[in-house]
Amino acid sequence: MTYTKEMLEAAPARVPLSTADVAAAIDACLTCLQTCTSCANADLAEPEIDELRTCIALCLSCAEVCDVTARFLSRPAHWEPFIVHRLLQACVRSCADSAAECAKHANHHRHCAICEKACRECERACEVLLDDETFEELQKLVGA
Amino acid sequence: MTYTKEMLEAAPARVPLSTADVAAAIDACLTCLQTCTSCANADLAEPEIDELRTCIALCLSCAEVCDVTARFLSRPAHWEPFIVHRLLQACVRSCADSAAECAKHANHHRHCAICEKACRECERACEVLLDDETFEELQKLVGA
Amino acid sequence: MTYTKEMLEAAPARVPLSTADVAAAIDACLTCLQTCTSCANADLAEPEIDELRTCIALCLSCAEVCDVTARFLSRPAHWEPFIVHRLLQACVRSCADSAAECAKHANHHRHCAICEKACRECERACEVLLDDETFEELQKLVGA
Amino acid sequence: MTYTKEMLEAAPARVPLSTADVAAAIDACLTCLQTCTSCANADLAEPEIDELRTCIALCLSCAEVCDVTARFLSRPAHWEPFIVHRLLQACVRSCADSAAECAKHANHHRHCAICEKACRECERACEVLLDDETFEELQKLVGA
Repeated sequence: MTYTKEMLEAAPARVPLSTADVAAAIDACLTCLQTCTSCANADLAEPEIDELRTCIALCLSCAEVCDVTARFLSRPAHWEPFIVHRLLQACVRSCADSAAECAKHANHHRHCAICEKACRECERACEVLLDDETFEELQKLVGA
Repeated sequence: MTYTKEMLEAAPARVPLSTADVAAAIDACLTCLQTCTSCANADLAEPEIDELRTCIALCLSCAEVCDVTARFLSRPAHWEPFIVHRLLQACVRSCADSAAECAKHANHHRHCAICEKACRECERACEVLLDDETFEELQKLVGA
Repeated sequence: MTYTKEMLEAAPARVPLSTADVAAAIDACLTCLQTCTSCANADLAEPEIDELRTCIALCLSCAEVCDVTARFLSRPAHWEPFIVHRLLQACVRSCADSAAECAKHANHHRHCAICEKACRECERACEVLLDDETFEELQKLVGA
Repeated sequence: MTYTKEMLEAAPARVPLSTADVAAAIDACLTCLQTCTSCANADLAEPEIDELRTCIALCLSCAEVCDVTARFLSRPAHWEPFIVHRLLQACVRSCADSAAECAKHANHHRHCAICEKACRECERACEVLLDDETFEELQKLVGA
């Protein structure tokens, strides 16, 4: 159990998104930051490290993007939709890439199987936010 | 629910500490990273920001220390007890300082009340690790 | 003097961008991470903190985006152009916002004047990379 | 050239250490964050990755400790000597470990040779701060 939703509700500023969805995305990012950090470290101790290079690289990147995305989503005051949108896009892509790579090793390494699950959940939670009309309108405005 | 304990159990390397305690500390650090990030941001939008300076500063520091501590605890392979020990000490102190400051504003700001709770829980979870005999022996060895 | 360009040249992997431009962007990001961190902290100790709320918030965000951008640009192996592109866009916007806000306080606070300069330099260094045809083609491909 | 020393001089708060020494340590930490991030990534693309596991792990840890140390040293307001002291100790140890490991591969990989140099410089710059009497007195007080 986390305090994320309670913290968002207690804040004097709000973002134009569902608080429950933002809280879910933050929690998914923090969970994914943890699994990716652990997965990359576990890979470093596996005998077949040669086949796990991409997994290490993608998990390290994913952990960093999830971290910064969780932080930005946790800050409704002085919220900048363009920046949050770009971070969410980077996060969705990074989670999808890590999940796809972990999937290749999921049968041999339980840490990859769990990490794939966490990455997929984070990918979906961030996509829910990206699908919000707030960002759809932003996309139209900036032509991107 | 997080995957932290499962990830630690799935890793090929182990640390000389209770897996349940390490997982609890990681989760407490990530929860505290979130509440401290949100609390500092909420403070920035409060009318009486002048009285919340210390709260902002301490919460920002606490978020960073919790982040790096969670990452190090998530990496049993190539674990270095001295570094982890110093980070845990920094984390306990940072959480205690943030909790004490948030407590002063807990009656006026619900985000401070929740953040105080998360900081106290993280402080205790890291202290459990520091009290482990692994670190006690280390302390004797390095004379610190 | 930094080792950034030397490190990029010594790496077994390369990115489809000018090494000198990537090194300049990394160094500008790290410099901006430092000035933004210091500027937000200095704001917290200024008597007129009430007018510096936005400066604190934007500098904290800018420091984080610069940090993660510097890290991604430092990793040519397993480089993912879409993610780097989104981070660069977020970084350019974050630097521009911080620079504009710091400019408002530059006459009263020397730390804001210096930080504005560092943000502008980082904004430009990242724009140089975004203007590269690698990313222009990517933009066409993803329609964004 | 960085703005670190100028930023520290422009801040309303001061730490009880030489500004030049603090600025040098911050710059060394940021430089080391960069080389360690690049070195770990380069290792991931080397044919003999099997022998570079420890190098990857230590460089990743070193990058994170350098990052958080640079941030704390950049924040004189609300400075907490105990926390900074523990981070500096962790940083010195992390840099020493990375330097020693990179040294083993310096003849085969230029990125390791450069990274070793940056780690050594950061280790020394942080030791200069730890040797300051401010921290010596703190050590006596806390018996650590």
